[in-house]
Amino acid sequence: MTQPPRTRDANTREDCEALDRADPLALARAQFTLPDGVIYLDGHSLGPATHAALARVERTAREEWREGLIRSWNTAGWIDLPRSVGAKLARLIGVAEGDVIVTDSVSVNLFKLGAAALPVAKSRTIIVEDSEFPTDQYVAEGLTALSGAAMMRVGEHQGILALQQTGGVLIRSIVNYRSSDTVDVAAFEEIARASGGVIVWDLSHATGVLDLRLGAKGARLATGCTYKFLNGGPGAPAFVYVHDELAGKIASPISGWFGHADPFAFNAAYAPCEGVSRFAAGTPGVLSLAALDAALDAFENVDLKHIAAKTGALGDLVIARADAMGLATISPRNWTKRGGHISLLHDQGYAIVQALVARKIIPDFRAPNAMRFGVAPLYVRFVEVWDAMDQLADILETRAWDKPEFHARSKVT
Amino acid sequence: MTQPPRTRDANTREDCEALDRADPLALARAQFTLPDGVIYLDGHSLGPATHAALARVERTAREEWREGLIRSWNTAGWIDLPRSVGAKLARLIGVAEGDVIVTDSVSVNLFKLGAAALPVAKSRTIIVEDSEFPTDQYVAEGLTALSGAAMMRVGEHQGILALQQTGGVLIRSIVNYRSSDTVDVAAFEEIARASGGVIVWDLSHATGVLDLRLGAKGARLATGCTYKFLNGGPGAPAFVYVHDELAGKIASPISGWFGHADPFAFNAAYAPCEGVSRFAAGTPGVLSLAALDAALDAFENVDLKHIAAKTGALGDLVIARADAMGLATISPRNWTKRGGHISLLHDQGYAIVQALVARKIIPDFRAPNAMRFGVAPLYVRFVEVWDAMDQLADILETRAWDKPEFHARSKVT
Repeated sequence: MTQPPRTRDANTREDCEALDRADPLALARAQFTLPDGVIYLDGHSLGPATHAALARVERTAREEWREGLIRSWNTAGWIDLPRSVGAKLARLIGVAEGDVIVTDSVSVNLFKLGAAALPVAKSRTIIVEDSEFPTDQYVAEGLTALSGAAMMRVGEHQGILALQQTGGVLIRSIVNYRSSDTVDVAAFEEIARASGGVIVWDLSHATGVLDLRLGAKGARLATGCTYKFLNGGPGAPAFVYVHDELAGKIASPISGWFGHADPFAFNAAYAPCEGVSRFAAGTPGVLSLAALDAALDAFENVDLKHIAAKTGALGDLVIARADAMGLATISPRNWTKRGGHISLLHDQGYAIVQALVARKIIPDFRAPNAMRFGVAPLYVRFVEVWDAMDQLADILETRAWDKPEFHARSKVT
Repeated sequence: MTQPPRTRDANTREDCEALDRADPLALARAQFTLPDGVIYLDGHSLGPATHAALARVERTAREEWREGLIRSWNTAGWIDLPRSVGAKLARLIGVAEGDVIVTDSVSVNLFKLGAAALPVAKSRTIIVEDSEFPTDQYVAEGLTALSGAAMMRVGEHQGILALQQTGGVLIRSIVNYRSSDTVDVAAFEEIARASGGVIVWDLSHATGVLDLRLGAKGARLATGCTYKFLNGGPGAPAFVYVHDELAGKIASPISGWFGHADPFAFNAAYAPCEGVSRFAAGTPGVLSLAALDAALDAFENVDLKHIAAKTGALGDLVIARADAMGLATISPRNWTKRGGHISLLHDQGYAIVQALVARKIIPDFRAPNAMRFGVAPLYVRFVEVWDAMDQLADILETRAWDKPEFHARSKVT
């Protein structure tokens, strides 16, 4: 594993400048278009725009939709986008090119994959941890209610034990949205296989910051979101990965026409197409798909080992500075055990984050007390993390968060 | 019901010009931006762009995403779009403003509504006609396989009888995608109520061309697509309508976080929000939603009676000209019994449509032999239909379709 730059030695802003100069990913930043003066540490929630994505949205709207109209399904390749964008994603998660398709949202895809896994698991049980991202838990509730499968909600880190005991279907994030904890995918898959169980991986907070190598680790089913560290744009569609060996043996419960072997034959009876494409359902959202397609070009030719190492190094810097401020973290100190965000705890976390935003530094907050700092390796600089931590220290020291306007709650936090 | 202009008397191009001059919807055309020289008769498949929709896509990308970043969920109102756009749609289908939400695709929504209807229907049976749009049939297959409900596929027009006999859940299009046949919603709903059954309406080919008045007719559940006659853009998200009285008694099987009563509390257990919003699932696709929001402004202040009357009149003109060419139609001759497209039959329909497209006249084709001419009342002119029919007559007379390039099949027809 590539060692990250030794950020524990970054004791000054100049040290950070040196790290940025030595950064093999430094050139990627130029592909992004961030607002002036903003330090953006919220890539784990919504990635920023690239020049290419903005240009592509406009081209898709003005040339393909306005000018090409219905013809663009063929002439602009709209019909192939779910698969061609999926092929780009496949490299980022380390699986075969044809095993990924872009479709629907993570919530809908968790439902589809969970349902599809039930007939091939030893036990008709859906397992989810109570520390799991909420929508994963909610979807498990809805799926079990409809299908009659059993629902097992277990404590944090208890999911794999429950899988081992039941041989059921475990829905599991690779990076926890709150703590940033990661999981040993290969070890989990080994247990799943031995027990007759199946794991549906949620890659939402993992893709784009780690060297996932899911194929080599035996992962068979996954979904993940593309608007976070993949920078696909607000509400960009999610993806589905199904290992080719499994694809022919399972079926999507939402058997829509775009998953049909021959959708434009307009046959009455459903016949799923080959491979992961059977997990497509309705007509794909072309504008969002096109933005995502262009956004992923920022990852072209980027070494995933560099991605993982820089994510680790930036995170180390956040933790080192937080230690110096006396701020506790719930994120792993070992960079190989965490994702692309660091959660720092403070009872006044909400107001502190608002005070940072007022200074054009944008992290985010998760109730009740976690301030999350996302360190996306393609556009976040060491010196920006340094400056952000300076401001955080100042806000804590001067109690700058203690103003009424920083306590007013928004609909979306 | 407003009478359509008497197009049977439009015997010349000049008559059509007079009809356009008298058209109360004539001004709406200026909101659309069609490519030069194109006569677009495919609004039943993909509506064209409006100036407002194109501008809105760019603003959402450049200002809201690029500049506002994560803050735009609050500051640009992204979080409210599913409901605010839903309120615009509510008027177009004639239901209460708060009873519509924009979310997911028609396929996914049919699944959700079909599943939600099962517990409140007398019989756990999903009924679908074999002439129904394919995805509706496919979704019924997948839903019944997962839920254990019975699947009844019946012949054309047999669905309501099956509903009456079983008290099950009928999935039914209001306008048939092929023939353009409509259905008596009020009569069907009366039978549904008497039998303890429930109807899930598919409005995909109906919204934007008819005066649907679904609330007055007793409709309780519906979904529909927005990229056809609503001009929302390629793959624009679909909508869900649930009558408020029913909403509290049913649940979406795909219980994602955006349907939660308090999604940003990040509670482990699911608690659905009030009303139709519980049918939201994952994070909405903001770029597509924004385009749709702006596109719907073309319908603002438009009288739905004028919409229905002009759709009828344009369709009458297509049929009158087809009669003169000796082309058979499977669409109803009575304008009050059909939707916004006319299907004309010809064994060489595919090639004829390609020959029309080569002359910048764009209808579409459905295998094996239906040429569909969409007559969207907001932007199609009488004189355009006249000219298109002139070209069709010429292509038939000269056998201009009989060239190899017009027989080459595309992926999407």
